[in-house]
Amino acid sequence: MAKVHNYSAGPCILPQEVIKEAADAVINFDGLNLSILEISHRSANFVAVMDEAVALVKELLEVPEGYSVCFAQGGASLGFLMSAYNMIADNKKAAYINTGTWSDKAIKEVGAVGEAVVIASSKDDNYNHIPKGYTIPTDCDYLHYTSNNTIFGTQFQEIPNSPIPLVCDMSSDIFSKKIDVSKFDLIYAGAQKNLGPAGATLYIVKDEIFSRNRIKIPTMLDIETHVKKDSMFNTPPVYSIYVSMLNLRHLKKIGGIEAQQKINEEKARILYAEIDRNPLFKGVAAEEDRSTMNVTFVLTDESKQAKFDEMWKAANISGIKGHRSIGGYRASMYNALPVSSVQVLVDVMKAL
Amino acid sequence: MAKVHNYSAGPCILPQEVIKEAADAVINFDGLNLSILEISHRSANFVAVMDEAVALVKELLEVPEGYSVCFAQGGASLGFLMSAYNMIADNKKAAYINTGTWSDKAIKEVGAVGEAVVIASSKDDNYNHIPKGYTIPTDCDYLHYTSNNTIFGTQFQEIPNSPIPLVCDMSSDIFSKKIDVSKFDLIYAGAQKNLGPAGATLYIVKDEIFSRNRIKIPTMLDIETHVKKDSMFNTPPVYSIYVSMLNLRHLKKIGGIEAQQKINEEKARILYAEIDRNPLFKGVAAEEDRSTMNVTFVLTDESKQAKFDEMWKAANISGIKGHRSIGGYRASMYNALPVSSVQVLVDVMKAL
Repeated sequence: MAKVHNYSAGPCILPQEVIKEAADAVINFDGLNLSILEISHRSANFVAVMDEAVALVKELLEVPEGYSVCFAQGGASLGFLMSAYNMIADNKKAAYINTGTWSDKAIKEVGAVGEAVVIASSKDDNYNHIPKGYTIPTDCDYLHYTSNNTIFGTQFQEIPNSPIPLVCDMSSDIFSKKIDVSKFDLIYAGAQKNLGPAGATLYIVKDEIFSRNRIKIPTMLDIETHVKKDSMFNTPPVYSIYVSMLNLRHLKKIGGIEAQQKINEEKARILYAEIDRNPLFKGVAAEEDRSTMNVTFVLTDESKQAKFDEMWKAANISGIKGHRSIGGYRASMYNALPVSSVQVLVDVMKAL
Repeated sequence: MAKVHNYSAGPCILPQEVIKEAADAVINFDGLNLSILEISHRSANFVAVMDEAVALVKELLEVPEGYSVCFAQGGASLGFLMSAYNMIADNKKAAYINTGTWSDKAIKEVGAVGEAVVIASSKDDNYNHIPKGYTIPTDCDYLHYTSNNTIFGTQFQEIPNSPIPLVCDMSSDIFSKKIDVSKFDLIYAGAQKNLGPAGATLYIVKDEIFSRNRIKIPTMLDIETHVKKDSMFNTPPVYSIYVSMLNLRHLKKIGGIEAQQKINEEKARILYAEIDRNPLFKGVAAEEDRSTMNVTFVLTDESKQAKFDEMWKAANISGIKGHRSIGGYRASMYNALPVSSVQVLVDVMKAL
């Protein structure tokens, strides 16, 4: 069958090699003559998978001493609540930068434990840029931001220089580029972009937060529960973690995050160059805030839409329709999308 | 390779036919030339999967009008908290029957929203029976119980006749026998026994509860969030739901819950008959409360242990070691375990 150029915004493309291994394990995992779907999470074979997944996260992201890595469930949407529960402390106030739909949802969850102070927002400009020049109040317990905004195609180019503990929802760009984990107190990310299939959520946490004067936290919302029990307080999402582990192994094999970052930058360079060159297209996000993961663009001449849509579909391109809240097109170029798929899209744009 | 007789307590055995289809979809889902792991949950093809899963739950369990079915994440462990949040009302008190480790954990989570009143417990007898003769206080907002106790091998034979709203954690026996859903206000169940792979949690809820005077509930803990958004408020655990749907299709194909219940009763009859007949073995649970799902038993002569362990391992039996809190043996006989596997175990017991 013809190759699909999978630009899905998430769950998204995974490496073919990973998919092949993932399918094999559904039939026979580790030579046990049992499916990965029907083994105990307490079995030695799966405990080894979990341990390897955690070790690979630490190795690939160069997680420093004094940090723990664990997996939970619920996606970043539960992470909005969990991060607030775990990070709120004496001030009962938290600072948030609002850069899109996901930040906005995160802000709403703070109400369960304290007050959210929105210190900067690009909401009035339909989130077409990352706010700058804000002041971070020191009477807040932490600063929260969303590193990459999937819907609007913006991305923080620098980690905010924060005088208070820093929390980041990195769901859509973790493992896509080098980050300095030591600058954060808490990082969380839904798996379904660059990590693995939907169903697992990654937490990277500075152990220090557990000894702060925290509020009472329900067991499953307490990140310490999951850290202390090696992500096995309850039955983990076994298959999502298994495939994430395979994907991290693959990332290591191709040269780690540094090598992947170069590929991602190359893909972004090719596509943005065409958007800027071709008078039929226009980028949506402010140039200095453009995301390497999600490229948002519109046609300058709406009458060309039917023809363009027909052309990219004919080229076997899938998933580039823009989110309903912004319209136009969105090319999501997560780690596993090959440069050749970007070239196919650019060729279609040139031919329009 | 030799067939493994998979008695795993969960995640547990699934039908071979389901596993085969589940593996195929990892390579190519719905003929899209894309893996089920890399498609958008908003794609028409996956929305159809979700709709079919919900429809099959309703059909197989004969869910009456006025009830909704949805999938969330977090397992029953998050369900302990979510059920309390969603069901606590004006009295700020909830009645619990404590029949094992899972009930005990559920009780602990009520503290986040109100007070748990333990109206009956078999804890002092290491949970070897289901308490009887208790009074259900009418000044509690709901009664909560665990229908089947995986670790101790006990199971409610009847649904408690409750004058207050009834909530049940059915993680380990849902879809194993007919139940009258109309008696419940809320049923929840982790997928990883008779439904599908770990990572999805099923909620069956009487819509009426949403119009009660409930407390303020964080978005992701509010069952109404998931019901209103057709289990897609955020990215669902796509693969767990897909395989659950396949498994429900399979259950329907073999004749539905009625047919499955007969098979389960036959398996239980065969194994308990041997335990009662063979002087080398003794059942752990009170006879009248015996579970059809998890059969707990011990050797009457401990000196036979090494030999018995060697024999069942040689017969390719897997996963019958008892839970550490009770010792001995536990044969978990979830839906997909064939009668022939039970016969193999019984033959080993006879040969000891």
